[in-house]
Amino acid sequence: MMSGYGRQEVVIESPNHDETIATMPLESVALIVDTYHQRYLALMEEHKNMMAIIFRNHGRRAGASLHHPHSQIIATGIVPQHRRWQEDEAQRYYDEFGRCLFCDILKQEINDGERVVVENELFLAFVPFAADVPYEVWIMPKNHQADFGSITAAEKLDFAVMLKTILGKLHHKLNNPDYNYVINTAARYKADEPQLHWYCEIRPRLTTPAGFEIGSGISINPSLPENDAAFLRH
Amino acid sequence: MMSGYGRQEVVIESPNHDETIATMPLESVALIVDTYHQRYLALMEEHKNMMAIIFRNHGRRAGASLHHPHSQIIATGIVPQHRRWQEDEAQRYYDEFGRCLFCDILKQEINDGERVVVENELFLAFVPFAADVPYEVWIMPKNHQADFGSITAAEKLDFAVMLKTILGKLHHKLNNPDYNYVINTAARYKADEPQLHWYCEIRPRLTTPAGFEIGSGISINPSLPENDAAFLRH
Repeated sequence: MMSGYGRQEVVIESPNHDETIATMPLESVALIVDTYHQRYLALMEEHKNMMAIIFRNHGRRAGASLHHPHSQIIATGIVPQHRRWQEDEAQRYYDEFGRCLFCDILKQEINDGERVVVENELFLAFVPFAADVPYEVWIMPKNHQADFGSITAAEKLDFAVMLKTILGKLHHKLNNPDYNYVINTAARYKADEPQLHWYCEIRPRLTTPAGFEIGSGISINPSLPENDAAFLRH
Repeated sequence: MMSGYGRQEVVIESPNHDETIATMPLESVALIVDTYHQRYLALMEEHKNMMAIIFRNHGRRAGASLHHPHSQIIATGIVPQHRRWQEDEAQRYYDEFGRCLFCDILKQEINDGERVVVENELFLAFVPFAADVPYEVWIMPKNHQADFGSITAAEKLDFAVMLKTILGKLHHKLNNPDYNYVINTAARYKADEPQLHWYCEIRPRLTTPAGFEIGSGISINPSLPENDAAFLRH
């Protein structure tokens, strides 16, 4: 049996109890992103930490137990099966086509345009082709980058702008819905791989997965990604 | 792209709006189980249906949109990846040990006894060794049976007794919690396989999966399976 191991850190985002990223000044959001980056690098220095998950739970339906604005970083001593499956799919794509799956997704989304919500110089925010939940948005660096730890200063700022913009749109257009976001990044020992690409996945909690989802692993999403993107874009 | 296909059936469980399996007479529960069985067999006659998921959502947190007591059966034209992963694990175990993984789990749980909630002649109800959620209970036929469609008349009755007993315990000891249950059964073309074994998975909705679960696929279960089983057993 595996012995217990892990690291959990809480990022307090503001001294103001009722503030949230959607309504904060950009400088505060930039500070949060920079804190993620610094703590991520520090955690990845510890060789027992195989990967870290940076996430934010907003509201009760999203599992938030404390109201004061905060995010969390959990480092694990293993790469969970769930992540290895995703990495294996990306590897298979790379083996077949010789290109990063996510770079290809970016290209296709920019060409199609239909699912794009916002684009800035270094990031694209779009509703994924097969979104799990209504108004799901992925924020992805446009340059190939497997590891969140490799983010540059310019990218940090553009990512903060994106995070604030998308969460602001959800806040104003959907009346401050509960949501989770997660930064999905490569495992430590895969930080330089050509087939992986980090991104931030924002999932509003407007629907409830039930028996069918538990049994099948398939999400029932009553929304069309193209409509969700158009709604958030305008 | 795949064209849309599927079958959805709703099993109305009672003429009484406020009844639920936990509080119904046993004969009504037996009728529900028999209905599952008949409809399952009918759906599996249609060659486009690759598998069926029988499930029940109880309460709002479990995704129930209608209060009147009902279950659902959804047949799909594919075997979802999520299920194929589980089937692959069972296959690997069978290839290595020459035995059904689930039959071995049954043997171990009966020997250990610590996680057993109730046992009757043909079924075992236990909290699984690595339960995803607090008070999760699996009801499993003690004789090897890959396919829910193969259930015998005697097994149907014992299964109905188990379902009523476990849901009754949850209802009375945990104040009628919201829950989902799902009957996990082999895909149609694997109905006779020696490595698969159907079971009913009952999941009370007392916790909320949040960012960590989304990112890692790992469940945070604050409960010890042995404690949950002891609590439900007595």
